[in-house]
Formats: sequence, C-alpha cells, structure tokens
Amino acid sequence: MHILVTNDDGLSAPGIASLAAALRRIPGARVSVMAPAQNQSAAGHRKTLMDPLRINAAKLYDGTDGFACSGSPADAIALALLGFIKEKVDIVVSGINLGPNLAQDITYSGTVTAAMEAAISGLPAIAVSLDTFEHADYSVAAAFVEKLTPIVLGRGLPPLTLLNVNVPTTPIKGVKITRQGHRIYRDKLVELVDPMGRPYYWIGGDRPTGHVEEVGTDVWAVDQGYVSITPIRLDMTDQAMMADIERWGLTA
Amino acid sequence: MHILVTNDDGLSAPGIASLAAALRRIPGARVSVMAPAQNQSAAGHRKTLMDPLRINAAKLYDGTDGFACSGSPADAIALALLGFIKEKVDIVVSGINLGPNLAQDITYSGTVTAAMEAAISGLPAIAVSLDTFEHADYSVAAAFVEKLTPIVLGRGLPPLTLLNVNVPTTPIKGVKITRQGHRIYRDKLVELVDPMGRPYYWIGGDRPTGHVEEVGTDVWAVDQGYVSITPIRLDMTDQAMMADIERWGLTA
Repeated sequence: MHILVTNDDGLSAPGIASLAAALRRIPGARVSVMAPAQNQSAAGHRKTLMDPLRINAAKLYDGTDGFACSGSPADAIALALLGFIKEKVDIVVSGINLGPNLAQDITYSGTVTAAMEAAISGLPAIAVSLDTFEHADYSVAAAFVEKLTPIVLGRGLPPLTLLNVNVPTTPIKGVKITRQGHRIYRDKLVELVDPMGRPYYWIGGDRPTGHVEEVGTDVWAVDQGYVSITPIRLDMTDQAMMADIERWGLTA
Repeated sequence: MHILVTNDDGLSAPGIASLAAALRRIPGARVSVMAPAQNQSAAGHRKTLMDPLRINAAKLYDGTDGFACSGSPADAIALALLGFIKEKVDIVVSGINLGPNLAQDITYSGTVTAAMEAAISGLPAIAVSLDTFEHADYSVAAAFVEKLTPIVLGRGLPPLTLLNVNVPTTPIKGVKITRQGHRIYRDKLVELVDPMGRPYYWIGGDRPTGHVEEVGTDVWAVDQGYVSITPIRLDMTDQAMMADIERWGLTA
C-alpha cells in the first residue's frame, strides 16, 4: 500500500509530519510525502500552467524525508502522480490542516483541492483538518486517519469522490457522516495607505463561524464534538435546477 | 440593474470587453468591471489572505473603464462586494473566457470560481466561456449572455448556485441544459534543466479532450454545436455515499 501525503500548510508544518508518521504505522504501508514549500492556505484548486515549478528534497518537522514543491497543493499532487513519484500510488491523504475546512470552505481549501486533484487523477483521497487555529495536538486526528485509510482502501470510493474529514480538539464523542453545512463568512475590506501614499487592500475581518444548529452538517458535528466525515463529489451539477431551467424558454 | 463583470484572462483581454459591452446594451443596466490585472487561468478558488492587494483604474481592450486587481478572480469579486464597489450589485457575470470550462475544469477555472465567490456572497452568477483557444469572435457568446442575464435576474437562482455557460464557435444549433460530463486530461510531466544545471518542471502535455459520446453533458452539447448551460451547486455532498459510509462501522 503506497500512500502519498500532502497538505497546504507547507512541508515543514507539524500537521503533515504527524499525519505521515501515523500512516507509516499502518502494516504494509509505504508513505511518500510531497507538499508545497510555502504555506498555501486558501490556495484553491490552482494549477500552475504559466510558470515552471521546482521540486526539492526537504525535511518534515520531525526530520523525516519529503519533497517540497514550489506550486500549489494541486500542483504537488499533479507533479507526483504524473511521474515524479515513480512507484504507483494507491491513495492520497492531505493534511492535517491547522484550521477546519467546513461547508463552503472546501473550494478555497488547499487541503481539500489537493484531494480533488487526486480524485480527478482516479485515486481515492482523504482531506483531514483540525478544528483549531492554535498550534495543537494532532495525535487524535492522526490516529483516526491511521484507522480510516485502510478502510477507505478496502471499501473504495466512487469515481471523482473524496472524503473531507474534520476533527474537533475537544474530547471526541464519536464519528458522524455529514453533509456540507453553511458557513458565515465575516470578511471585511481593509484599506491602508503605503509609505508612497498609494492605497492597498487586505481581505480582513474575523474568522468564519457557521450555522451550528443545522443538525447533520459538518459544521454541527464538529461543534458537538464529533469527527465529521463528508463524502464530496466533484460532479456539482444541480439536477433539480436543470428541470427548472428547461422551463425558461431558452431551449425551445 | 447593476451588473458586476469579471474574468480570469485579465482586464485587458478582448473577451471581457465584449461581455461588458453586451451587458451595457440591456435596458436599465449599469455595468461595473473589476478583474485581475494579470491572466489567472486555472487560478482555482484562491483567496489571498497572506498578502495585500492592489486595485488600479485601468482600461479594457475597447478603451472603456474598469478596475484591475492584483489578486485572483475570486479576490476581485470579494474586494468589489466587500465594499470597493459602492453601489449594490445585483448579479455577477464572469468571462468571456478564451477556452471552454467543461466537466472537471470548473474547480480549476478562474472564470467559474469568480462566479462561485459571487454565489457564496449571496448573488446570482453566470460564468461564460468560449470553446476555442484561438483569438475568436466573442459576439455570439456576448449576445447570448445579453439575453440570458435579465432572465436569470427575473427568475432568480437558488442559494449557492451558479450557471456555467459554454458557447461553441461553430454555428449555434440551439441551447441545451446539461450536466457536467467527463474530461480526459492529457497532462504530462516535463523535466528540463536550467543554466545552473538544476532541474525544473512544467505541467505540460496536450489540451484536454472529453467524453463527447455522453449525451446530455456539457462536453457533448458543445461538441454538437449547442450552447451549454449547466447549473452548478456549491453543495458537493455525495448524499448516496453518506448512506454507504454509515455501513463502514465507524459511527457505531
């Protein structure tokens, strides 16, 4: 079993070291690590087509070996699966992200979009995030993924599907299979003036919250102290809406 | 009616000028334009949180006025809707992209992810792409969006939903409401050596094709000479898979 590990916090982040170490404990598992050289949070599903990319051998936080890539998380997975990693990969695991990836976060999230890239390449994939922005203990999340990964490999996932896992930092009450909930973003436009007198802007504001009262969602599960597993499909077609639009008179 | 126009090919690309000109012809419409300063193809749903952003008044290809933003297409929409554009926006239209955005392209596409950002901000949104990579005639696509936009504003879209429109360059046979099809990506790893003897990499290869035989998909419709409209929902939960995973013994 050959597991490819990546993340979006960068190769030197503690979370990916905890994840790789846990996956190496799976009997029969071989683990390769290739991740962005720099933090790529909110990188989105970016593929670098206009610029060349660098890949360098580098050390993880715990001194183990990996490859650092100059691009996005999706670039790291694309380069690895297109042939930089010679041995056939069986599954991709991305994380452990410092910060949750819930509800509408997932198209922004480099952690999740790395898993999307793997799914598009035909591999099962798991994205794992920890529900805290503080430097935290990754051991519970790592142990959970150590348990989950062989199950996913054994059961398989449908084509173009991935699992989005979020782990609370409160004592774990259990596991919930969830649907995507609703984020409440609290971004604000921040306008400042540089030393030359020219305006510049930040997307600032407060961290997002979510509708924790929507029972059965990822936002609810993590708030309640459960590990959340959301199956995510890359087919985003709104089937119900298709029938509605047929009645708009455009296709007559 | 206040329409915000953006794209991912950059503010100076011909496609966005054609789009803005067409939308200005809608009776009662006011059009604002804010787009990336640079080409951001395959930018993904990137939100720039680590760096400040610049916004400059700039000219479109046809000499009309817009704003050029240093970030991604989603950044342009976020900055505009967070308050850089003072007047309330009613709908966001993104494009016209030089190149189709079909099937699994949509999470990579800056054109579509700009529309996703609008949908997350609570606005109806349309992404428009032309099925050619050559410098092309945008007039047919522009005229179609001129017709579609007031209909979308009148009918409304469900929350967190957008329309992904692809227009062929062959004579238009009509309009099809489609589901996402399947892309065949043909990326290849290209390894070169720089003048200092160090390796570097491109994600190269050939342009993607698609399963044109899958009737009813976006890939099929455009191949057959139809304008394709795919309703896209940001809820990517795989509901059927949820029930399957419940049987994996994780939640007991």
